[in-house]
Amino acid sequence: ELVVLTYGALVAQLCKDYEKDEDVNTCLDRMGYGIGVRLIDDFLARSAVKKCRSYSETADMIAQVAFKMYLGVTPSVSCSSAAGNEFSLILDKNPLVDFVEELPAERASLCYCNLLCGVIRGALEMVHLAADVTFLQDRLKGDAVTEIGITFLRKAED
Amino acid sequence: ELVVLTYGALVAQLCKDYEKDEDVNTCLDRMGYGIGVRLIDDFLARSAVKKCRSYSETADMIAQVAFKMYLGVTPSVSCSSAAGNEFSLILDKNPLVDFVEELPAERASLCYCNLLCGVIRGALEMVHLAADVTFLQDRLKGDAVTEIGITFLRKAED
Repeated sequence: ELVVLTYGALVAQLCKDYEKDEDVNTCLDRMGYGIGVRLIDDFLARSAVKKCRSYSETADMIAQVAFKMYLGVTPSVSCSSAAGNEFSLILDKNPLVDFVEELPAERASLCYCNLLCGVIRGALEMVHLAADVTFLQDRLKGDAVTEIGITFLRKAED
Repeated sequence: ELVVLTYGALVAQLCKDYEKDEDVNTCLDRMGYGIGVRLIDDFLARSAVKKCRSYSETADMIAQVAFKMYLGVTPSVSCSSAAGNEFSLILDKNPLVDFVEELPAERASLCYCNLLCGVIRGALEMVHLAADVTFLQDRLKGDAVTEIGITFLRKAED
């Protein structure tokens, strides 16, 4: 819970600093990127996983190994494009929002967990995979589930 | 490591927001207080510990159960006053600073981990123990160990 509460303090501070939700979202994504760039070494060392050979394997690895390791949950993964480069991570439960009831009305556009998108993007970049990572659905905004979309931008290299 | 890096992002943001180290320290302590006030429920539920009957037991509980649970380390405890209300938690290793080499010269007065003091203070207050909690030594500032001082301010009630 310490990480959940520390994260809450971080988001609250950014909401004080920036009036616009978009600016908070951008800042969280940027911070997450910086974290992902550093976290990847820890992940590779602790997980001892083999190199992924496809986008699909990579998405499964993020969901089943990385999320499990750092957040204690395992999202389900679905591929959402015929081209095979777009994936969704579906979270029934998002531990980062454990203490958040709902977003205040004046913060309706806040992507509370946007740090996670940045973390994934930063970590993928360090293994030479460019990706767009965004929240597609968010239970905090009244959606039924929380869904993170990952779109790989280039062909995976071997 | 996610908590360590998230905490680093929080401190970096506060250093952007406040020019004076003292203001960052105050802010971290205040945030920590808010976290401690909420974390205590989680701690009592997960640890299932019995009520402490002395300051000494309380200090041991913080070191051996709470630090172990949330930070994965166990500080040693020493009592530093004849009155029996002052204790030191000595940390050989502080996991929160894993990615911090040393403080930048212009941030020489920053108590990087001051959030911890606030967390302890807030959590103690929720079990009706008023305390001053401050860093007495800090390896980030060149001291041999990191030492957190806890001074209980009133007689423990039964």
